[in-house]
Amino acid sequence: MNNLLPFASDYMEGAHPEILRCLEKNNLTPMTGYGTDSVCADAKEEILAACGCPEGEVFFLSGGTQTNAVVIDSVLRGVEGVIAADTGHISLHEAGAIEFTGHKVIQLPHKLGKLNASDVKKYLKDFYADDNCTHMVQPGMVYISNPTEYGTLYTKSELRALSDICREYNIPLYLDGARLAYALASPENDITLRDLASLCDVFYIGGTKCGALIGEAVVIPKRGYIPFFFTSIKQHGALLAKGWLLGAQFHVLFHDGLYEHIGASAIKNAQTIRAALGKLGLPLFFDTPSNQTFVIFPNEKLPALKEKVNYGFWEKYDETHTVIRFATSWATTEENTQKLIAVLKGLF
Amino acid sequence: MNNLLPFASDYMEGAHPEILRCLEKNNLTPMTGYGTDSVCADAKEEILAACGCPEGEVFFLSGGTQTNAVVIDSVLRGVEGVIAADTGHISLHEAGAIEFTGHKVIQLPHKLGKLNASDVKKYLKDFYADDNCTHMVQPGMVYISNPTEYGTLYTKSELRALSDICREYNIPLYLDGARLAYALASPENDITLRDLASLCDVFYIGGTKCGALIGEAVVIPKRGYIPFFFTSIKQHGALLAKGWLLGAQFHVLFHDGLYEHIGASAIKNAQTIRAALGKLGLPLFFDTPSNQTFVIFPNEKLPALKEKVNYGFWEKYDETHTVIRFATSWATTEENTQKLIAVLKGLF
Amino acid sequence: MNNLLPFASDYMEGAHPEILRCLEKNNLTPMTGYGTDSVCADAKEEILAACGCPEGEVFFLSGGTQTNAVVIDSVLRGVEGVIAADTGHISLHEAGAIEFTGHKVIQLPHKLGKLNASDVKKYLKDFYADDNCTHMVQPGMVYISNPTEYGTLYTKSELRALSDICREYNIPLYLDGARLAYALASPENDITLRDLASLCDVFYIGGTKCGALIGEAVVIPKRGYIPFFFTSIKQHGALLAKGWLLGAQFHVLFHDGLYEHIGASAIKNAQTIRAALGKLGLPLFFDTPSNQTFVIFPNEKLPALKEKVNYGFWEKYDETHTVIRFATSWATTEENTQKLIAVLKGLF
Amino acid sequence: MNNLLPFASDYMEGAHPEILRCLEKNNLTPMTGYGTDSVCADAKEEILAACGCPEGEVFFLSGGTQTNAVVIDSVLRGVEGVIAADTGHISLHEAGAIEFTGHKVIQLPHKLGKLNASDVKKYLKDFYADDNCTHMVQPGMVYISNPTEYGTLYTKSELRALSDICREYNIPLYLDGARLAYALASPENDITLRDLASLCDVFYIGGTKCGALIGEAVVIPKRGYIPFFFTSIKQHGALLAKGWLLGAQFHVLFHDGLYEHIGASAIKNAQTIRAALGKLGLPLFFDTPSNQTFVIFPNEKLPALKEKVNYGFWEKYDETHTVIRFATSWATTEENTQKLIAVLKGLF
Repeated sequence: MNNLLPFASDYMEGAHPEILRCLEKNNLTPMTGYGTDSVCADAKEEILAACGCPEGEVFFLSGGTQTNAVVIDSVLRGVEGVIAADTGHISLHEAGAIEFTGHKVIQLPHKLGKLNASDVKKYLKDFYADDNCTHMVQPGMVYISNPTEYGTLYTKSELRALSDICREYNIPLYLDGARLAYALASPENDITLRDLASLCDVFYIGGTKCGALIGEAVVIPKRGYIPFFFTSIKQHGALLAKGWLLGAQFHVLFHDGLYEHIGASAIKNAQTIRAALGKLGLPLFFDTPSNQTFVIFPNEKLPALKEKVNYGFWEKYDETHTVIRFATSWATTEENTQKLIAVLKGLF
Repeated sequence: MNNLLPFASDYMEGAHPEILRCLEKNNLTPMTGYGTDSVCADAKEEILAACGCPEGEVFFLSGGTQTNAVVIDSVLRGVEGVIAADTGHISLHEAGAIEFTGHKVIQLPHKLGKLNASDVKKYLKDFYADDNCTHMVQPGMVYISNPTEYGTLYTKSELRALSDICREYNIPLYLDGARLAYALASPENDITLRDLASLCDVFYIGGTKCGALIGEAVVIPKRGYIPFFFTSIKQHGALLAKGWLLGAQFHVLFHDGLYEHIGASAIKNAQTIRAALGKLGLPLFFDTPSNQTFVIFPNEKLPALKEKVNYGFWEKYDETHTVIRFATSWATTEENTQKLIAVLKGLF
Repeated sequence: MNNLLPFASDYMEGAHPEILRCLEKNNLTPMTGYGTDSVCADAKEEILAACGCPEGEVFFLSGGTQTNAVVIDSVLRGVEGVIAADTGHISLHEAGAIEFTGHKVIQLPHKLGKLNASDVKKYLKDFYADDNCTHMVQPGMVYISNPTEYGTLYTKSELRALSDICREYNIPLYLDGARLAYALASPENDITLRDLASLCDVFYIGGTKCGALIGEAVVIPKRGYIPFFFTSIKQHGALLAKGWLLGAQFHVLFHDGLYEHIGASAIKNAQTIRAALGKLGLPLFFDTPSNQTFVIFPNEKLPALKEKVNYGFWEKYDETHTVIRFATSWATTEENTQKLIAVLKGLF
Repeated sequence: MNNLLPFASDYMEGAHPEILRCLEKNNLTPMTGYGTDSVCADAKEEILAACGCPEGEVFFLSGGTQTNAVVIDSVLRGVEGVIAADTGHISLHEAGAIEFTGHKVIQLPHKLGKLNASDVKKYLKDFYADDNCTHMVQPGMVYISNPTEYGTLYTKSELRALSDICREYNIPLYLDGARLAYALASPENDITLRDLASLCDVFYIGGTKCGALIGEAVVIPKRGYIPFFFTSIKQHGALLAKGWLLGAQFHVLFHDGLYEHIGASAIKNAQTIRAALGKLGLPLFFDTPSNQTFVIFPNEKLPALKEKVNYGFWEKYDETHTVIRFATSWATTEENTQKLIAVLKGLF
């Protein structure tokens, strides 16, 4: 695969060079364990400042599935489930990691990969109107991801509508920001980190796909909102002895605002790809404003594409077409983007 | 804590410099996800070669508690529990991570931190002799750690005795090697990696405490012994998107035998510390041949020690004494070791 | 509610009089605990004889949700989920009892409340064709109920088709027979107890809704198919100290074939009701051959109905209609059936 | 076993005759499902009146292990465990039913089968004094049984001391009253149902071993103390469709105080047995004031005893002796008691 153009995912490369530099600089400095060190403390403070909730809490975990499972299981009571779009990452692609913790994922139909506030409202209203509702899984949380699994973005008003309903029903709203940097860098985005902190009860800022080697930062705007969350992280096997390893990376990403523009080149390259696909007449599966591009591709051309490009298989579209993904990342070069376009032009 | 001498644990520093160099070298090379890359493949092959079981399997995880929970839960049936020494890490210090997966830890009394083959045999014999044994948790695995939580080592004959009993009762033997490098480097050790592969059904080679930034390598000598283990790792939230990050580190540790001698300086420094403690008349809690030293310390001297040394609190010994730990690691310098001894001499 | 006509469910009354007589007769006879008594032994033998699998095993549990959770959790590995129709009882109405044990319910669309063999085949084929299938919940069992939640019945050829696919993929087929007596008594049924034993890997014969006070009998045609099932029952809190209480009831139901005809009057009364509804022009939601009748009822008439009849609310049909259920049971009298019809006639 | 004298357990017989009469009387009366019927409502009111907490809540479950698992799992957060005596039923004899729900049983040493308030206090004090306590299972509940597994009784002052500590640390106290009727009927008992309601946060009144066919009544003195408890019961597979079956039994036991004296004859017969054992010079394992008698029996006499008596095996005492149990119940006759004594006299 060494010679293939790398557009399969946004986690094919390592870390932003500054992060490696920081790890190297700190490498032999002794740190206390489990994230109690001063580097983590700095990173947490910087993140909370960026989110405008200095009184909140931040916890660092290693990956997205892990973060979702730990947060959801720590917030929910035993009898509660989590509402998610049927395309939601936790619904489909996480090997039952949520059910493993004992909770049902209550799936509602997506609209462009997003969960619709009015659908959630209708579900909750109908649920509580049913005399038998105590025989059923209690809706205990709403889960969304932004960007979504399909690369689409919530608008601030959509997010506020969801937040309003959650608060009306006293159900926490949790946002999975695995690719949040690519939302923040998108010209179509109108949601800031501060908006997230004011509209969500918990959210996480993705590192693994956004410039870090590994790591996700869970933000809890209201301190103490999840009691014993530290213990729960340990119980779920998600506590790193060398917590500073995660803190150091987020310190690099947040001490001078790197995170908020690290996704810019990925967006630009994705736009270039989408423009080229448009010119070639290849229809998009969803018109996305972030770093992922889903295109409906003729099956007959896939073997030729596969020889030169590492792309993501998404799903069968029809008998003769397949939805495939081209993902860009902070590490994607303009050069590779142009090479990809050249390959595509050669095929059509 | 910057000026304290770092002897609290063996995970205070980062990684062996060669590991950082390797991460840097590979940083922008695109890799396929989830450990399917060629670097992981190389590392696995090298580990299996070192263990003398080329037909086996290797999986990389991030930390010790996680590895224990995933392995134990993947091997056990629902009705089974795991036998461990009452001092075993899974018994005490992991926030109920094993019980979280639904399994009881069946505690047997330790002997110098170790599980005794004859105690296990007696337990199993009595268990199956009891007419009511189907009303109880079925013993489904034996867990040991080497070095143990108290830094002691199993001898090969002790390990073989445990293995024999496990095989007699058809119960898997699992060894937690979080600090395995410090066993391998100890002059008192007579157990090789090949012995582990032949006597255990599963074991893990610790990276986090033994030179890696993070990472543990689970070795399954008999391929297929744990069906769907990959899926189980994902389900437990333990699968890294950038699996190569772990593979690359183990490649550095195993491609030319670094792992088997990386602990040598830690053992030497620990011996120097123990010799000094002996001269000062400070009694050891256990006489340990590896990198951890547990000493019975007078409480009245602790405040002065605390000003200069970051040590590990272990447990109350009596009203006037405390068991404390001095841990060395591959990163411990001779200079700091001498400084620690000087501090101790100043106190007594 | 004493004066309402009782058609809300098939578990409104107690037990067949013979069962009470048997309990009374045995009341002061000392029995050994946990189902190890001779009455249970007799009942098990009788059930296995009726199912034509004398070498099999029978276990008695207390209720349907419990039985489903215990069986499914005992059969599945941790990473496996259970395939069910989206209308399946375990999908909707059991408060997440399956997810509570850590397993996902993989929902496929129903056809008249039934799971279609070709849908299952397609799902399994596509699943294993997906390169990412190890990232997803493994399909580990197929769950069906007969009669279904909507009162429909599988034909023998439908059941065989499902069984064939399950065996092709080496996935157990589990049949929930909560209302099995009403299938056996239906003129449209062509599946015998022996067929169940030869086509399913596990199934349960419902007692609670079919003449028993409480109790369900799990039949495992191949002895030993679920290792440690007894221990698992205890672990799930489902083992009764007085196991003979369940055995005695099934002994009454099976020692001379009572179970196979106890549902006959319920079917007859249900047919009478359906004929009357037809004459009144009230459309059925599904045309069912068993003891449950689902009818599309005008909302405006519901208040008047409610004054005289205890019926089951099922679901909203449209803005002006509701699906309601009239359930008959072995205890339903012809007199009450006629009264119900008179009430309905009075309304239309 | 028909001819053996029945002293193995207190659940060998069925129900108090009045209970059977009540079941028969109600048998064909249609009831609403899941305990929403008026019989359950009456029984609940009667129980709450007897406990002096009319504002409380009562829920009916089927058996002891089930009740313990459902209550404990419903009360505890995910990171919490339950403190119990190492002889506690949940520690040993329930097949890991508590761990199955994800919670650790934190075992403290028993004193005569009882948990000692000062031991609990010391444990809690030391726990929270440990800097690493967030790395460990949080103590979230104290579990005791009364009578204990060894037939001993708490005094009111012992219970109050436990209650005080629990309240000081804001940890619920839960009492397992599987054999509560035998405490209430013991002349040594000084704890009333009202005391339980004022000193415990949750407790259950045992039916299965105390005159009911099956059934346990969970009492929550403060309504709403366990949110969604009904849903949790269903989720654990513990909700009976015919809830009235349990309510009717407790109605018989509580509508005129039967429960508080139903154990009297069992206590009297147990005293007779203990007196006889004393005369024969057979030492008791514990001197118990309730319906269970544990005696240290010479192994050489066991075969002869076994021919005539169904007794309970408890544990090995030494090489030549065994601890065995003679249990009496409400159904034990004076005649059988005398026969047992005659058998014993014949042996010594």
